[in-house]
Amino acid sequence: MEAALRELVDRIQPVENAWLAKAQARLDALTKPPGSLGRLEELAARFVAIRQVEMPPLPQKRVVVFAADHGVVAEGVSAYPQEVTYQMVYNFLRGGAGINVLARQAGAEVEVVDIGVNHDFHPELPLVHRKVAWGTRNFAREPALSREEALKALWVGVERAREAAQAGVEVLAAGDMGIGNTTAAAALGAVFTGRPVATLTGRGTGIDDQALRHKVAVINRALSLHRVEAADPIGALAAVGGLEIAGIAGLILGAAATRQAFLLDGFIATAGALVAAHLAPTVTDYLIATHRSAEPGHQIMLDALNLKPLLAFHMRLGEGTGAALGMLLLEAGLRIYREMATFAEAGVSEKA
Amino acid sequence: MEAALRELVDRIQPVENAWLAKAQARLDALTKPPGSLGRLEELAARFVAIRQVEMPPLPQKRVVVFAADHGVVAEGVSAYPQEVTYQMVYNFLRGGAGINVLARQAGAEVEVVDIGVNHDFHPELPLVHRKVAWGTRNFAREPALSREEALKALWVGVERAREAAQAGVEVLAAGDMGIGNTTAAAALGAVFTGRPVATLTGRGTGIDDQALRHKVAVINRALSLHRVEAADPIGALAAVGGLEIAGIAGLILGAAATRQAFLLDGFIATAGALVAAHLAPTVTDYLIATHRSAEPGHQIMLDALNLKPLLAFHMRLGEGTGAALGMLLLEAGLRIYREMATFAEAGVSEKA
Repeated sequence: MEAALRELVDRIQPVENAWLAKAQARLDALTKPPGSLGRLEELAARFVAIRQVEMPPLPQKRVVVFAADHGVVAEGVSAYPQEVTYQMVYNFLRGGAGINVLARQAGAEVEVVDIGVNHDFHPELPLVHRKVAWGTRNFAREPALSREEALKALWVGVERAREAAQAGVEVLAAGDMGIGNTTAAAALGAVFTGRPVATLTGRGTGIDDQALRHKVAVINRALSLHRVEAADPIGALAAVGGLEIAGIAGLILGAAATRQAFLLDGFIATAGALVAAHLAPTVTDYLIATHRSAEPGHQIMLDALNLKPLLAFHMRLGEGTGAALGMLLLEAGLRIYREMATFAEAGVSEKA
Repeated sequence: MEAALRELVDRIQPVENAWLAKAQARLDALTKPPGSLGRLEELAARFVAIRQVEMPPLPQKRVVVFAADHGVVAEGVSAYPQEVTYQMVYNFLRGGAGINVLARQAGAEVEVVDIGVNHDFHPELPLVHRKVAWGTRNFAREPALSREEALKALWVGVERAREAAQAGVEVLAAGDMGIGNTTAAAALGAVFTGRPVATLTGRGTGIDDQALRHKVAVINRALSLHRVEAADPIGALAAVGGLEIAGIAGLILGAAATRQAFLLDGFIATAGALVAAHLAPTVTDYLIATHRSAEPGHQIMLDALNLKPLLAFHMRLGEGTGAALGMLLLEAGLRIYREMATFAEAGVSEKA
């Protein structure tokens, strides 16, 4: 499978400046001062350059929500009990969660993937059943996953991206559900940015000061226990990662390989992006950072990827909720690109 | 008319904390950690408290675009010729301008008001015909408007807000079109914030360094010529304002008096908000600042109103384009409020 991964990585092409310039030329002909729609123009140009289509239709969108459990919750790092992971999966399937609401508004499909929930879902539930394990092991004591499990979970993500591309999806995002997953994401953030664990670790779903100090200590202990290195992204994912984070990393690689724009959600999704970018640096050409999470470490991780978030809404729910808002904004940029009149069409005088 | 204005101002009630708390109680019962949807929750609570309705339907929205000309363009303060104002009005009517595109996405109506364009529009055009004057006079030499004209233009805005309320609109925004209007807005900004003109003056549609220095000098000269004072908002509006800015100020007062949420656009709209807030400080309870403009003075003006913008997209088009994006985000907050399942409904465990 590592050979297949190398082949996938080789297939990811950079986004071409010539396409960005072509898109900007149209934007500059529209009835507005050049550049006056700021980041909306940037979004439109990026999408055109990703798709390499001069007048793209409004895209089909999908949010793939990966759900998985985390053995490290045994250390008392979360404010919520582990069963919330599977309970929330049922909430997704009934359409009552935040991501369902925001995806409906954005006109995006929601696909829910059981990539490692510690619960037995009935096989007829409308889930993508891809359970790699019944949650990770407690990485405070042993590696979260074997290398094979990490790769297998990553590959689940790659295949979800391919399936989306085949279904005509052009804008993809990942969501996450997994009690304990900010602990894994902060650990990976520390590995890939080289910054102290304390700067990358936040309150997650809402732990108090004492639990926060404990969470930092748990991560620091795990990192010395496993001797994790940024140069081995799969090794890092296996040692202190999570199954949903592996799925997200794979989804990002698969999206870039199939030229889908990838709307990057918050803290957990960005941990996945760090893994993907350490396997294939070019994936960042396909990433649009949608929001800066309330988790203090998120900005550090976005900086490491050289991405500027669209929103800073103090959100920290995950599930892909920030990405769904980003879809509205990307669509706004594309509508501007497609629907605004040019100076010539409208008979408006240009700059003196 | 000043008596009618006093009566209107007296009718504006503060938004009640009890309603904000009631809305937050529902938000806290939804299947997410409390507060984890950040500013989306803030938007929903604000709207509920403005409307005083426990489960508000998704609101009807309208953008009122006021168009007017500016005598001060004779001083060479703009990158575009004056005829662009009326040419853009035709573009609005054909649906080809930025605001048309973004309002369509947001599901908002666009109403175009000729409040003072230097052009003779056919009376059968689907405009709201309320021309107060054929543009302002050149305030570098004489007052832009008489006190009566300023009040008359303000009252046009009040009446557009009343008409909107009668039509069932609950979310209102103002847009602007007027070559030269960043000069008037910067002058008003300096009056109402007390900050130096140079810090409030930007490149508008795109003037160069020399023209920018000249623009600052023109405004400084006008402010000493007219001895403008913040304590007399109507006097300031008459001396260095604009007809569309007066209309916007009136629209804001009228929106607050009829309990419509007002989505505040960029630099020009915020100049109108400063006028309105100096007549009735309580209007800020009804304002949602949608974006921070690329005009450097905008943040100073937002700070003076104690408003935090939702977006910082480097936009500087006006027309209400930022407000239309804000409508998407407000709707996202309201959908969360209305459609998410509670912990009890979804059978999800609460915080330990």
